Amino acid sequence: MAVKIFGHQNPDTDTITSAIVLADIETNSGNDVVAARLGEVNAETQYALDHFNAAAPELIESVGEGDDVILVDHNEFQQSAENIGQANILKVVDHHRIANFQTESPLFYRAEPVGCTATILHKMYKENDLEISREMAGLMLSAIISDTLLYKSPTTTDEDIAAGEALQKIAEVNAEEYGIEMLKAGASTEDKSAEALITGDAKSFEMGSKTTRIAQINVVDVEEVLARKSELTDAVEKEIEAEGYDLFVLVITNILESDSTVIALGSDANVVEKAFDVSLDEDTALLEGVVSRKKQVVPNITKALG
Amino acid sequence: MAVKIFGHQNPDTDTITSAIVLADIETNSGNDVVAARLGEVNAETQYALDHFNAAAPELIESVGEGDDVILVDHNEFQQSAENIGQANILKVVDHHRIANFQTESPLFYRAEPVGCTATILHKMYKENDLEISREMAGLMLSAIISDTLLYKSPTTTDEDIAAGEALQKIAEVNAEEYGIEMLKAGASTEDKSAEALITGDAKSFEMGSKTTRIAQINVVDVEEVLARKSELTDAVEKEIEAEGYDLFVLVITNILESDSTVIALGSDANVVEKAFDVSLDEDTALLEGVVSRKKQVVPNITKALG
Repeated sequence: MAVKIFGHQNPDTDTITSAIVLADIETNSGNDVVAARLGEVNAETQYALDHFNAAAPELIESVGEGDDVILVDHNEFQQSAENIGQANILKVVDHHRIANFQTESPLFYRAEPVGCTATILHKMYKENDLEISREMAGLMLSAIISDTLLYKSPTTTDEDIAAGEALQKIAEVNAEEYGIEMLKAGASTEDKSAEALITGDAKSFEMGSKTTRIAQINVVDVEEVLARKSELTDAVEKEIEAEGYDLFVLVITNILESDSTVIALGSDANVVEKAFDVSLDEDTALLEGVVSRKKQVVPNITKALG
Repeated sequence: MAVKIFGHQNPDTDTITSAIVLADIETNSGNDVVAARLGEVNAETQYALDHFNAAAPELIESVGEGDDVILVDHNEFQQSAENIGQANILKVVDHHRIANFQTESPLFYRAEPVGCTATILHKMYKENDLEISREMAGLMLSAIISDTLLYKSPTTTDEDIAAGEALQKIAEVNAEEYGIEMLKAGASTEDKSAEALITGDAKSFEMGSKTTRIAQINVVDVEEVLARKSELTDAVEKEIEAEGYDLFVLVITNILESDSTVIALGSDANVVEKAFDVSLDEDTALLEGVVSRKKQVVPNITKALG
């Protein structure tokens, strides 16, 4: 059976395209693999797939005991496929912290503290002397633009910028122009339900004895979202009750202004005040300069809870 | 402060030399690092250090909160320095399974399922366009010989053999001849106390709710060790009582015959019978063809306990 390659739940552009791109690398190295995904393709990712003529990976929900799998863009089991603990993880390519991850046997694990999985995959093409097609270059460039918000996020490293510059040539697009269009395609919230907005890009984190859920929405119009605050609050409260989260932070990121407005709910909501040195006003605060869940939101809340 | 690079407790040849070798790579890449070790240098490793004119790394026991560190040849916190959970782990280069490992931030993590950390380090010289000195080549070759028992262990991969062949040329030694002498230097048990034998190369593993301690002794004369069985059993029983292990397996590996005799003690000792399909006779059994803790002993016991 072909080895399944997939990223995290609530897939974003880096997770979807990295599964496709690593499948290309593995296939060209003579391995039998297939790209998969754990959820719906969002509007931003669909824009990238359409632009570079790529098909969405196969949708799966769970993995079977002993299945050979490869993970991209995540490692924490609670962000992965159902029953991931029973699978045989052969390989991981990721750019996140490592936590709640365990294997029985040695494996190939490649993580680097860069802004995007695609930046590591770009290196792997070179190291394995493989050619990068226009399509794969376009998908990697899309992932870098998405994860770094066009190089504006503090997660952006020199390596991401260098990879992006090399890839835009092969992809035959202007990163800035293409990037704004791609980000805008994913930034409209009008046609999305409150439930879709708080689950679309949400991740759970075990922090000591607490479970924190952090959902992020990238927008160009924050007011459009805040106008629906009571509806969003109701949806979050329902999730907290159903899943037992101690803290739920909805991060509404303005991708043009590079800041975020948060709505913090749950029994530990006040931790957000300590984490960012702000005061919550009706559960809401503006976090200036904060755009990265991984580099800014998660470490600060982890520290404040510790 | 210089970043400390170190391997696991009860250091073996791969752990000690990998700290020295990665320190060489980092230094030549312009980084301020220092090699360290968490315990005494054993006789085999001392032979390698003497042969290639290398000094033993600095001895440390614990790390401070927020210290920048790099781990080689291990990742599980219970095998690492005291307070490792409070350190800032920048990088890991390893060839073991991942377990009981967690960071707050993204990091550089490089693991491959090869026989030896040195095999990965050898690649890193090439990838970073760095020259390998005779001394560093000799240390890496020593690590490969030690971990693969001169390519006889089932952990040995084609990559280990290729690295060993390339390195023996730079090191200006014959791997076979040098290797036998190095292994013999570490294989004498006569001058070692029972306590030294059961702690010299011992690692703890969390397996479900159980804690298993697996100590390994590489010898050329198994009878020399078994003649001291009651003394060894007493020492193991003391450790079990002091540390609360559910299972303690002493693996006495005959490096010339490529098999192992085990002494299994603790409340879960009978798990060894299920794990290897053998019968324990007075706590002892011969495991034919078993020489690798990582590839054979740990996975089989983990499975039998599951």
